[in-house]
Amino acid sequence: MTKEDVAREMRELQDFICSKLEALDGEGRFIEDKWERNEGGGGRTRIIESNALIEKGGVNFSEVYGEVTPMMKKNTEITGDSFFATGVSIVLHPNNPHVPIIHMNVRYFEMDDGKYWFGGGIDLTPHYIVPAQAGAFHRGLNVICDQYSQDFYPEFKTWADNYFFIPHRDETRGVGGIFYDHLSESESVSKEDLLNFSMALGREFPNLYAYQAELGRAKEFTQDQLNWMSLRRGRYVEFNLVHDRGTKFGLVSGGRTESILMSLPKNASWVYNNVPSEGSQEEMTMSLLKKDIDWISMG
Amino acid sequence: MTKEDVAREMRELQDFICSKLEALDGEGRFIEDKWERNEGGGGRTRIIESNALIEKGGVNFSEVYGEVTPMMKKNTEITGDSFFATGVSIVLHPNNPHVPIIHMNVRYFEMDDGKYWFGGGIDLTPHYIVPAQAGAFHRGLNVICDQYSQDFYPEFKTWADNYFFIPHRDETRGVGGIFYDHLSESESVSKEDLLNFSMALGREFPNLYAYQAELGRAKEFTQDQLNWMSLRRGRYVEFNLVHDRGTKFGLVSGGRTESILMSLPKNASWVYNNVPSEGSQEEMTMSLLKKDIDWISMG
Repeated sequence: MTKEDVAREMRELQDFICSKLEALDGEGRFIEDKWERNEGGGGRTRIIESNALIEKGGVNFSEVYGEVTPMMKKNTEITGDSFFATGVSIVLHPNNPHVPIIHMNVRYFEMDDGKYWFGGGIDLTPHYIVPAQAGAFHRGLNVICDQYSQDFYPEFKTWADNYFFIPHRDETRGVGGIFYDHLSESESVSKEDLLNFSMALGREFPNLYAYQAELGRAKEFTQDQLNWMSLRRGRYVEFNLVHDRGTKFGLVSGGRTESILMSLPKNASWVYNNVPSEGSQEEMTMSLLKKDIDWISMG
Repeated sequence: MTKEDVAREMRELQDFICSKLEALDGEGRFIEDKWERNEGGGGRTRIIESNALIEKGGVNFSEVYGEVTPMMKKNTEITGDSFFATGVSIVLHPNNPHVPIIHMNVRYFEMDDGKYWFGGGIDLTPHYIVPAQAGAFHRGLNVICDQYSQDFYPEFKTWADNYFFIPHRDETRGVGGIFYDHLSESESVSKEDLLNFSMALGREFPNLYAYQAELGRAKEFTQDQLNWMSLRRGRYVEFNLVHDRGTKFGLVSGGRTESILMSLPKNASWVYNNVPSEGSQEEMTMSLLKKDIDWISMG
């Protein structure tokens, strides 16, 4: 399997997901911007803005390559002199506070010294946590993981708890999901398996999101709930700009800023020292933004 | 002059500025949260939220000390085993898009190995740049600087251009101002001068802001201009969370998150690939978000 094979599969995955998401949204259509990277490669940024389901979302494909710069060496684990990277990144912010924010990324790195790795992740950020829905999400991920290795789900679920965490808030970003990085072939898993695993996640993504979206999109909501959504979006912005490694890598590697920051919501807000009232849905959500919750058993 | 003397002056500066800002706003009153840092010291966070002039603003005093942690060593230039830091930090976000955002910080560090330094900065971020107003702001700073050293304004103005810069946008945050760091006594400037310089900046801050505020606060504005303000606030959030060293130091040194992130606006927005229309005020503002503009000659 060549790096061009991986890139082709990633490109096809972007097409597949965009088509499914347009059908799910029902109204919005992706607009596409093709871009080139001065130092090598480029991508296809696709953005959807809809009044139906997805207020603002992006599904990005990129295939970039070139020299490993000092900035990249300082900020990443990349070795060697030149690199190749390809992947698909998704963030969807819904209009309705009862639909969660969802994120997915699958990526492949190859260095000129022959090293390669796969990475990826998928996680759910409900504005209002419903444990049964979080359970369904995790069960879906568990099923895909188990097809490749029994170790994947428990290991990658814990990795997600630790990765999608905001230390300065002592909160997880949402109910987590799975996260993995630097995966290369081993005795039990081949390189082809690793590619297939990433593609299986990608192809299941529209179903996983559709389940969450259909449960929430028709629910009524109040202005207070919209305000709460804006506050939670503020936390999403904090995570992405302060902690997210993908965002940092993109910004320091000369990535296209508008493509990278498509992950930010249409609006976000910050209110000093906001504390939800006792017994509220908002307080319940805050109480569940913790690592190490066994969501499957709660669903 | 002891570190306690510096801290006392900083505390008094906070009182002075809050009192002036309440008078300027006319309606809003600061609320105060006193906080303690587990590892040593604490602060007084003061927040104002008003419908008159200042939609959301903070004037923070802190005096923290303790052990230099590995995280602090990694992220700052601090040497030695224990440190003392005190300062005042201000960010004001106005209701009216014709009033600029303003920021000020004055700070003092002392290490147990006897080293100390002063740092600070003050910069203006108009949503709509009016060159004459930017010129007045810079002239005011120039006058204060010249009382201490003829080198200060030119040196610190350039420093601000480089510091208040968003590389991933290739934009300055606003029209700059002055920035300085790691200043200690020299043949031409004593330690007392350096403290007096920081205090002179702090005491002039309310006047500098009042001038800008009075010119803009009564101007009418449209919903489109409010939307533009939200987009510019988005850039402010990007700068503070991705680049600002003060924010980073605060978050890694166990600072109080709600006090540090008081700098974030009530709301901010992100629209994919927003490009102002040709000949618009918004386009003119974008064209002036550059380093090395001699604002004084434009005023």
